[in-house]
Amino acid sequence: MAPPTPRLVVSVDLKKKPWEQALPLHNRWHPEIPPVAHVKVSEVFRVEMVDWTGSVIKDDDSAADVKFIDLSTVHYLSGPIRVVDKNETPAMPGDLLAVEICNLGPLPGDEWGYTATFDRENGGGFLTDHFPCATKAIWYFEGIYAYSPHIPGVRFPGLTHPGIIGTAPSMELLNIWNEREREVEENGDKSLKLCEVLHSRPLANLPSTKGCHLGKIKKGTAEWEKIAKEAARTIPGRENGGNCDIKNLSRGSKIYLPVFVEGANLSTGDMHFSQGDGEVSFCGAIEMSGFLELKCEIIRGGMKEYLTPMGPTPLHVNPIFEIGPVEPRFSEWLVFEGISVDESGRQHFLDASVAYKRAVLNAIDYLSKFGYSKEQVYLLLSCCPCEGRISGIVDAPNAVATLAIPTAIFDQDIRPKAGKVPIGPRLVRKPDVLRCSYDGNLPTTKNPAASM
Amino acid sequence: MAPPTPRLVVSVDLKKKPWEQALPLHNRWHPEIPPVAHVKVSEVFRVEMVDWTGSVIKDDDSAADVKFIDLSTVHYLSGPIRVVDKNETPAMPGDLLAVEICNLGPLPGDEWGYTATFDRENGGGFLTDHFPCATKAIWYFEGIYAYSPHIPGVRFPGLTHPGIIGTAPSMELLNIWNEREREVEENGDKSLKLCEVLHSRPLANLPSTKGCHLGKIKKGTAEWEKIAKEAARTIPGRENGGNCDIKNLSRGSKIYLPVFVEGANLSTGDMHFSQGDGEVSFCGAIEMSGFLELKCEIIRGGMKEYLTPMGPTPLHVNPIFEIGPVEPRFSEWLVFEGISVDESGRQHFLDASVAYKRAVLNAIDYLSKFGYSKEQVYLLLSCCPCEGRISGIVDAPNAVATLAIPTAIFDQDIRPKAGKVPIGPRLVRKPDVLRCSYDGNLPTTKNPAASM
Amino acid sequence: MAPPTPRLVVSVDLKKKPWEQALPLHNRWHPEIPPVAHVKVSEVFRVEMVDWTGSVIKDDDSAADVKFIDLSTVHYLSGPIRVVDKNETPAMPGDLLAVEICNLGPLPGDEWGYTATFDRENGGGFLTDHFPCATKAIWYFEGIYAYSPHIPGVRFPGLTHPGIIGTAPSMELLNIWNEREREVEENGDKSLKLCEVLHSRPLANLPSTKGCHLGKIKKGTAEWEKIAKEAARTIPGRENGGNCDIKNLSRGSKIYLPVFVEGANLSTGDMHFSQGDGEVSFCGAIEMSGFLELKCEIIRGGMKEYLTPMGPTPLHVNPIFEIGPVEPRFSEWLVFEGISVDESGRQHFLDASVAYKRAVLNAIDYLSKFGYSKEQVYLLLSCCPCEGRISGIVDAPNAVATLAIPTAIFDQDIRPKAGKVPIGPRLVRKPDVLRCSYDGNLPTTKNPAASM
Amino acid sequence: MAPPTPRLVVSVDLKKKPWEQALPLHNRWHPEIPPVAHVKVSEVFRVEMVDWTGSVIKDDDSAADVKFIDLSTVHYLSGPIRVVDKNETPAMPGDLLAVEICNLGPLPGDEWGYTATFDRENGGGFLTDHFPCATKAIWYFEGIYAYSPHIPGVRFPGLTHPGIIGTAPSMELLNIWNEREREVEENGDKSLKLCEVLHSRPLANLPSTKGCHLGKIKKGTAEWEKIAKEAARTIPGRENGGNCDIKNLSRGSKIYLPVFVEGANLSTGDMHFSQGDGEVSFCGAIEMSGFLELKCEIIRGGMKEYLTPMGPTPLHVNPIFEIGPVEPRFSEWLVFEGISVDESGRQHFLDASVAYKRAVLNAIDYLSKFGYSKEQVYLLLSCCPCEGRISGIVDAPNAVATLAIPTAIFDQDIRPKAGKVPIGPRLVRKPDVLRCSYDGNLPTTKNPAASM
Repeated sequence: MAPPTPRLVVSVDLKKKPWEQALPLHNRWHPEIPPVAHVKVSEVFRVEMVDWTGSVIKDDDSAADVKFIDLSTVHYLSGPIRVVDKNETPAMPGDLLAVEICNLGPLPGDEWGYTATFDRENGGGFLTDHFPCATKAIWYFEGIYAYSPHIPGVRFPGLTHPGIIGTAPSMELLNIWNEREREVEENGDKSLKLCEVLHSRPLANLPSTKGCHLGKIKKGTAEWEKIAKEAARTIPGRENGGNCDIKNLSRGSKIYLPVFVEGANLSTGDMHFSQGDGEVSFCGAIEMSGFLELKCEIIRGGMKEYLTPMGPTPLHVNPIFEIGPVEPRFSEWLVFEGISVDESGRQHFLDASVAYKRAVLNAIDYLSKFGYSKEQVYLLLSCCPCEGRISGIVDAPNAVATLAIPTAIFDQDIRPKAGKVPIGPRLVRKPDVLRCSYDGNLPTTKNPAASM
Repeated sequence: MAPPTPRLVVSVDLKKKPWEQALPLHNRWHPEIPPVAHVKVSEVFRVEMVDWTGSVIKDDDSAADVKFIDLSTVHYLSGPIRVVDKNETPAMPGDLLAVEICNLGPLPGDEWGYTATFDRENGGGFLTDHFPCATKAIWYFEGIYAYSPHIPGVRFPGLTHPGIIGTAPSMELLNIWNEREREVEENGDKSLKLCEVLHSRPLANLPSTKGCHLGKIKKGTAEWEKIAKEAARTIPGRENGGNCDIKNLSRGSKIYLPVFVEGANLSTGDMHFSQGDGEVSFCGAIEMSGFLELKCEIIRGGMKEYLTPMGPTPLHVNPIFEIGPVEPRFSEWLVFEGISVDESGRQHFLDASVAYKRAVLNAIDYLSKFGYSKEQVYLLLSCCPCEGRISGIVDAPNAVATLAIPTAIFDQDIRPKAGKVPIGPRLVRKPDVLRCSYDGNLPTTKNPAASM
Repeated sequence: MAPPTPRLVVSVDLKKKPWEQALPLHNRWHPEIPPVAHVKVSEVFRVEMVDWTGSVIKDDDSAADVKFIDLSTVHYLSGPIRVVDKNETPAMPGDLLAVEICNLGPLPGDEWGYTATFDRENGGGFLTDHFPCATKAIWYFEGIYAYSPHIPGVRFPGLTHPGIIGTAPSMELLNIWNEREREVEENGDKSLKLCEVLHSRPLANLPSTKGCHLGKIKKGTAEWEKIAKEAARTIPGRENGGNCDIKNLSRGSKIYLPVFVEGANLSTGDMHFSQGDGEVSFCGAIEMSGFLELKCEIIRGGMKEYLTPMGPTPLHVNPIFEIGPVEPRFSEWLVFEGISVDESGRQHFLDASVAYKRAVLNAIDYLSKFGYSKEQVYLLLSCCPCEGRISGIVDAPNAVATLAIPTAIFDQDIRPKAGKVPIGPRLVRKPDVLRCSYDGNLPTTKNPAASM
Repeated sequence: MAPPTPRLVVSVDLKKKPWEQALPLHNRWHPEIPPVAHVKVSEVFRVEMVDWTGSVIKDDDSAADVKFIDLSTVHYLSGPIRVVDKNETPAMPGDLLAVEICNLGPLPGDEWGYTATFDRENGGGFLTDHFPCATKAIWYFEGIYAYSPHIPGVRFPGLTHPGIIGTAPSMELLNIWNEREREVEENGDKSLKLCEVLHSRPLANLPSTKGCHLGKIKKGTAEWEKIAKEAARTIPGRENGGNCDIKNLSRGSKIYLPVFVEGANLSTGDMHFSQGDGEVSFCGAIEMSGFLELKCEIIRGGMKEYLTPMGPTPLHVNPIFEIGPVEPRFSEWLVFEGISVDESGRQHFLDASVAYKRAVLNAIDYLSKFGYSKEQVYLLLSCCPCEGRISGIVDAPNAVATLAIPTAIFDQDIRPKAGKVPIGPRLVRKPDVLRCSYDGNLPTTKNPAASM
């Protein structure tokens, strides 16, 4: 009988730089990045991936690497992978590519990861006005469990998943992306609530030749120069899937991706050992290298059949996901709520981003009563299996968002109790010696409430 | 031994109007609405509630009642209930009131509910620019299950919960609410993305004497006039809990509410047989009359101990929730994604409300391929046990929101499949004869993309 | 529209004796017990039930009622209920009756129950050789939760279900029952491992006119005399369903019962607020009065289509069950194992009953280290939501059975821990003052190991 | 920082025979089998294992290998592993060894397994009187899923676990085993219900030098001869754990094993990709080679503290298990029931083994209506994630056992339905060409009912 072992189609060598790999990685979306591997429908194949930074972040006690990281180089993706059917006919624009995640995990011998917050001047994050400094926590894996020397007293099973999985955009779709993102970058969102104190954070991440890697396309060639100027960054999720950061996309999940170019040109990367909904600290999951075992099917004509464009063109679609049947059982959840009133007391109109920010801040303040620093909790909520929900989005003027945290991940009872002092006996261990080095314009000068 | 049967502290008679009840209901938040009942900690007591509109919506096939509803009268709440400890000392400002939901359900003999969308000119909803007409679906209950003659082919177990549970605000907190909501109503949110086509929808619901009911306080008295002018509407969730619409707040849940006035003055109402995260259609859960069986504990000084104010005053806090251990098991979920690019193709910056809107629209379009009208799906997603998540909130410029729908609620397989036409054999049954009567300024005149 | 409220077809008045009810109850299986109610397929109807003893057991601190109970009168069942289809054609022999449990619960105003062990001379139980005395624990309900003043420190959500639901047997089936049970009663099971020390326990419960109640059939008539002599006791589960004691048969479950007589003649009773797998103490669930809301369908010819007789006649079939989607989530389970070596050290061959007995005894001994008496634990394991599994039944000579207990039902951590004394600080509270009154031939005289 | 990668302490080479491995395997329990590896508490270490037969069973379409297997050689175990604490003090008799399963899985490159029934004359199984022939199904793994070319139309996620994990017995415990098993082998169980037609099946598996492997002890030496004559077979689970076959013992589980010899001498093997409760076909899980990543703790004096001997000596104890938090979610289960009346119609007294046999036979008959042969279903129920429960063990004379099968593992709806012929369109594919070759004394000659 045929051997069922997954065929390894992309391997990585962690001792080499991302651009030195046998099958070179890429960190941009563009239709002309050539495939590095070919797979057939129904075969199970294995893809290995470096962590999203390409080994820039180290397993140590300093956040210097996080603080000074060159973010123009992320995320390093494995692929593109060309998909054909049993008759060797490739996936074609208009098809749906159904990708099943059969298995996944850390790379053997590299069972660790990290969660970090970027410096406000270099990347920032959801709460960068409250936490402007770079911090870092290292996580070690014991099989399904992760624990961190920097956040003692928690241990949880990971719901491991790829942060990024997507198909290559067509030139037409790429142009749409570049136009709309340039528009917001140049003219701003009319409503910059979230980022009004983020004086240095760009509103979008436009194409840049700096840091650009295009797989098999040689740097310095004219082809490279042309593509590098056009190719989209991998930071945001978009119509092709990409950085969707869906924390439940683990074993047994299926992703229905629209196909925009011949062969589909599937790429993936940004493996997460675990992530909380929202991935709030930005470098926010437990980031790691890893592998995926995948199986593809092609649903011919599936885009038209199953997806409805919701914008000016037929390309304005989104992928569909089926989440897998295996996940950790948690019995008890403590739920924090936020409403769309910001830290200064100002009312916003049904703004779920503000509400979620408040829910996360509430949870951070609460958990910091149990022996943790706020920075530790921020990192923890970014990567533990917590659920971020939009509970109410219609009751003007308040959106209600909630953050639900499984109580079993802590080694102490974190529920409110009569007659019990919540502060645990544990010594707070600082996650990062660089934490206090921030010397930019602190948010407190603009927004007194934000200094909590 | 002592009889353990829950003591009925508030009963309602559905044949009477809300203001004719033996213990009169109220529909505003104000510290001076006097308690109608008293309970002790540890005793299990029962509270009955009318539906949020006080029986205005009827079990019939017309949405006329929804279209012309007077929204100044909602929500009718049962209470306030004064809570004392075993020594008869009342809950005091600064305490936490822990309220456990021991049991709940529809009122016996009234096992039905409704889900509706309001007319764009009278209430609106999350997708009112896409669905400007009033619609209504009736649901009947068979024990834990609900089914609707207006949305055939679905049946699901309810995760029943109160939409509203909260304590009375202090005068100081009430003033904060009124000021910040008046500010947004008068000067606008700088960022009116969601409502820019909602020309007639108010940004906030300010105090109004019209439709006001204040429990035991007699209408027409000077006291009534004064309080009615100050009392906050019950529409939005706020620091006191209130309309939090957390769909998992079912049997076994515990709510830790801050206490702002002596006795806590707990009120509750707006029973939901089932609700989807976001309650997107606004009249969006399966709304019903019902009962709660509750048990209170007082955590003395708990506000200071467990809650951290996140604004200019110590009153800027939010309740904490512990969700119960009993819920329907679902094995398979289909997940729809939205990113913060709106229907016109315009890019927004990390806006979770826009992203969630797109996720819901994607789901509506998808499910409408299986034999449903879009109005039917909009109502369904508002009330079935679907989960709305903030998946990514950091990858500029796109927020990613997801809507996960349990596939088992449908009587057909709704997953994408190769070689299978998705459209089911079922005839679409219109949920409402009034659906096409909208004659205001259609959104298409302002926003072409919104006419999909 | 039609009112969907369940029609009450059998009501009970707890102030009256079982035989005084408006619709008289019955406690035997016989085809000639006439129906007391009629239902149509698809209608939701409500059935009320007394507890299995008909209110003999009281809510007090004495087990005298348990010790001297007349077991010839159990179980009091509500029904029979005749089922017809939409054309008034009754269910016919050879059909399957699909009964859905839409809702269920305690009778309002009677929210309490009991768990007990019978005296070795009057009923006994699975572990009667270890626990020969009558004991009793009272449970009070707080909504979904039960707690007991006699077993402090535990509280758990109930998975409420009917212990008995079944159709009437045909005369032919009844004869089969009576013959095979008389055979074992008279000639013994060749292998009386379990009961070799149960000198007084009958091997079967044969028909007896004593204590017999036959519903509408008047006592003293010739008809009554004839039927009472033939009618089967309700103690064991059999081909017609009956006392199946499946603990997960709660809301949303469906039971496919074979039909043996015209109209099916459905009866039900023996409501359990909660039960552990095995119901080991015999009076072993949290026994209570209660109600069921049911809906029936008829699958014509379903017996032949779906059931295969597994014995000499086509009547040797068993019902099929579909368990409902709603149950308490438990995250952590402690699992105790038993192998088929008995307390004296003797080896049995693949005997799952012996193995399960050992697993239960192991769990009792373990939990008694945490501040409980063994009698308390025996009662607890009989009624809490624990799972009893046949883990291995093939590895000669040892069957392996396991008992899994959800750790969350205890208010202390019951897991083994290094450097921690397991005995909790709680005072043991005796569940029953009669516990030490046993004065028969104690098992220790025959089996030294059983005296643990 | 220290590298957290699990240290590989026992590796296997599948190209070599079990006795040729670098660290030789063993297939008996004996205190004098020397450790092959040493581990410290808290370190995560990796153990590789051959399948239980040591590669005798092949990935092909013939059951000849199963039919003629030499069962004297099973199970091949990896170990013993000596466990010491941080001060190098070994685990000592009287301690508890807490073994956490951090991770586990098939050996990379060997992602397949098999389920089989033995010939009635060579091994047999739970239903060998109904299925006397050797059969075999091969399973292939796609990540978490298994599917079989021999049982088409089913696919399920595995709940992978070791069938065997145990500590070495002391000489005293070994003697107890040998005595009690010899007693049953020689004098019989007084109640041979299950095996009365199993004329050739031994009642126990006594020590035999044939097929014996003792790890580092050289065959042919006097030491080997002595130990081989005493060493216990690994077939049954016993006081040391061993072949407990608990299907939920997967990632995150913890096993508390009693320590009988210095160093604990932990051994493990018999990896199962998936197993149903009972492992009914004997070679009944999806048997495979595999690896475990384990972490040990020592609870000093834990045997006395936590285990209570339940027999004549302090050694009559059983391990305790804590099952892990990760498992497949299933929403719907179909439940088959069996009562303790055997196939001939004879009544047994509260015999859970007979009842479980009937439940399994009922399930086999039912599922064979959906396009499967009974042999296929027997193999399937032995290895799929079905739950076997002891539902009622007290209602004389009938024990009630149930078998619950998750409906989602089938690609067709297997529930009973009105007006629907259950037989699916799929062609039955015979799992094995040897299926009809049985030529012994068929059970039909002794027991007509068993010929179904």
